Amino acid sequence: MSATNRRIVLVSRPLGEPTVENFRLETVAVPTVGPGQVLIRNHYLSLDPYMRGRMSDAKSYADPQPLGEVMIGGTAGEIVASEHPGFAVGDQVAGYGGWQEYSLISGPGLVMLQKVDTRQVPLSAYLGPVGMPGITAWFGLSKIIEPKPGETVVVSAAAGAVGGVVGQLAKSRGCRAVGIAGGKDKCDYVVRELGFDACVDYKAAADAAALDAMLAAVTPKGIDGYFENVGGMTTDVVLGRMNAFGRIAVCGMIAGYNGEPVPIKNPTVILRSRLKMQGFIVFENPTMVPWAMSELAAQVASGRLKYRETIAQGIENAPTAFLGLLKGKNVGKQLVKLV
Amino acid sequence: MSATNRRIVLVSRPLGEPTVENFRLETVAVPTVGPGQVLIRNHYLSLDPYMRGRMSDAKSYADPQPLGEVMIGGTAGEIVASEHPGFAVGDQVAGYGGWQEYSLISGPGLVMLQKVDTRQVPLSAYLGPVGMPGITAWFGLSKIIEPKPGETVVVSAAAGAVGGVVGQLAKSRGCRAVGIAGGKDKCDYVVRELGFDACVDYKAAADAAALDAMLAAVTPKGIDGYFENVGGMTTDVVLGRMNAFGRIAVCGMIAGYNGEPVPIKNPTVILRSRLKMQGFIVFENPTMVPWAMSELAAQVASGRLKYRETIAQGIENAPTAFLGLLKGKNVGKQLVKLV
Repeated sequence: MSATNRRIVLVSRPLGEPTVENFRLETVAVPTVGPGQVLIRNHYLSLDPYMRGRMSDAKSYADPQPLGEVMIGGTAGEIVASEHPGFAVGDQVAGYGGWQEYSLISGPGLVMLQKVDTRQVPLSAYLGPVGMPGITAWFGLSKIIEPKPGETVVVSAAAGAVGGVVGQLAKSRGCRAVGIAGGKDKCDYVVRELGFDACVDYKAAADAAALDAMLAAVTPKGIDGYFENVGGMTTDVVLGRMNAFGRIAVCGMIAGYNGEPVPIKNPTVILRSRLKMQGFIVFENPTMVPWAMSELAAQVASGRLKYRETIAQGIENAPTAFLGLLKGKNVGKQLVKLV
Repeated sequence: MSATNRRIVLVSRPLGEPTVENFRLETVAVPTVGPGQVLIRNHYLSLDPYMRGRMSDAKSYADPQPLGEVMIGGTAGEIVASEHPGFAVGDQVAGYGGWQEYSLISGPGLVMLQKVDTRQVPLSAYLGPVGMPGITAWFGLSKIIEPKPGETVVVSAAAGAVGGVVGQLAKSRGCRAVGIAGGKDKCDYVVRELGFDACVDYKAAADAAALDAMLAAVTPKGIDGYFENVGGMTTDVVLGRMNAFGRIAVCGMIAGYNGEPVPIKNPTVILRSRLKMQGFIVFENPTMVPWAMSELAAQVASGRLKYRETIAQGIENAPTAFLGLLKGKNVGKQLVKLV
C-alpha cells in the first residue's frame, strides 16, 4: 500500500467554461482507520456531467462543492482496512469516495457504500451501465417516458454513459431507438455497437432546419419519448417532431452548464401536442434502485447491454479528462483508472 | 321565430393579429328541421381564446376552421323544433352551435349537445364555470397540478373564465391561491370578489425583475403549482420561483397566439427543480367531465363559486368582442347575448 493519498480539490469556481486552474492536485498521508470506519483503495473514479453543476454556487438541487475540499465523485474499489463489522478487507465496493486514491468512509457515508458482486459484472460497470448512469437511464425511460412497444424514443448524447443505455433499454421494450450524437464516429458506435435503429450527427447539421430534416428522415412516425441530456437547438428540433401525448424526461441540459442561455424557443408545442416534460434526479428515487440494478446487471452479465469506457490513467489526469467529458470527447463512460 | 338566421363566417386567415376584416356577417334563412334533427335558438355564444388557434392553418391538435363556414363556438339555447326523440321543444341545451342565431344539429353533432338544468344554475353558466372553461380549470388543477393543502398555486389570466375558477378551486382544496392579471381592476376583482389570497398586476411591472419581486412578496413559500394561460415573461418569472417537484398545467399561451415567439428562457429550471410541465386539452378527457360538472354546478348553485360575465349584445358584435377578449378587455367569461 502506498503511504500517500493523491487527491484533487476544487480551488476556485469557474466563470463560464471550467479550466484545469480550478483544480489542484494534493498529496497527503493515507488516513488511519478508526472505529466504525473503512478505508477503500479506489480503482476507478467516475466523471459525470453533474459535477459541473456542483462547481458553481448557483441555487440548485444540491449544495455546491465546497472550495478547498476533495471533489465529489463516484468511485469503485476495494476495502483495504476495516473497523466496521459490515465490511471486510478484500470486499469490492462502489460509493462516493471523491477524486482521490484512498477514501476513508464512516457514519452517514456508509449508507452510500455498496458491496458489489464482480463475478459476472466488471467492477467498473458499477460506475456505468449498472451504476448511476445506467440507473438514471432506467428511471427516466421506465418512469417518465414509459414507452410502449412500437413507439419511437429519441435520446441526445446517445454515445454517452446514460444515453447508450436509454436506447438499448428502449429497444428491449420493443421501441424504435434513435440517438443524437456529435460526430460520425459516435453515431457509428451508437448504431453498430449499441444497436440503435439510427443516429443523427448534430454536428453535420448547419442549422435547426437541417437537423430537423435529418431527424425527420429517421423518425418517420414522429417521436413519442425524448430523453433530454443536452438542451438548446436539439431540444427545439425534437420538440417540434413530438407526437401528441409525448413524454420528455429531462435528465440534463449540458449546453447550459456554463451559464449560457438555452431557451426553448417554442414552448407552445407543449400545449399543441399535449406533452409532458419532467425533470428528475435519480438519487431522489432510491426505492426503484434495486429493480433497476437487477435488470441492468442481468443484461450486462448476459452481454446484451453493450457499453464502452473511455479511461484516463491516474488521478492527476482527472481534471483534463473531466474537461474533455464536458466537450463530448469521450465515448461511453468516462473513467479515471487509479491503480 | 325570426325567419332569418344571422351568422358570422371566417373569410380570411389573420397574418399576426386578427381584425374584423377576417369575419363576415351573413343573413340566411332559418333552416328546416328534417328527420333526426333539432333546431336550436341560441341565447348565448361563448367566445374563447382557443378560437384564435382555429383561425390559423398551422399544425395543431384540431383542424383549422374552414374558410367561408360559420365560426366554431360553444352556445347555450333552447330547442325550437325537434324531429329527434331525445329532445323536445323548450329543452335548454348547451353545445357547439357556432357563431349564429340558430343552429341545426344532427348526426355526430348531437353527441356534443347536452340538455342542461337551469333551475339552480343559469343557462349562461354552462358556457362558463360549469362549462368548458370551468371543466378546463378543474382538470388542470385536479389532474395535473394535484395540489395538496398548504401548497401555493399560481394562475395567470386569473380574471378570465378559466383562471378565476382555478384559484377558487385551489382555495377550496386548502391552498394559497395567487393570481396574475393585467391591471388594478382585474386584480381587485380577483382578490375581493373571487377570494384569491393575492393577485399580481403584471402591467405594473417594468420588467422581469420587477415582476419577480412582486410575485416573491405574495408567494413567500415559493410556488408548488402553476396553471399556465399566457406564456412569455410571466412564465419565466413563475418558473424561477417554483419549488422542487412543482407541477405546471399548460392550458394556453395566449402571448404566442398571433405567432410571436414566446421562448422559455431558462428551461434548465425544469431539471434543477424537477418540475413536471404538461399540456392538456380538456376535450380529450371526457371521462372526468361528469365529476367536474357535478362539483362545479354544486358550487355555483350554492354561491360559493363566484364568476362574472362580460356580455356583448348581438351576433354582429361577436368579432369585435372576440378581438377584445384576445387583448384582455373582458373580465370573467366573454359571452355574446343573441336574444
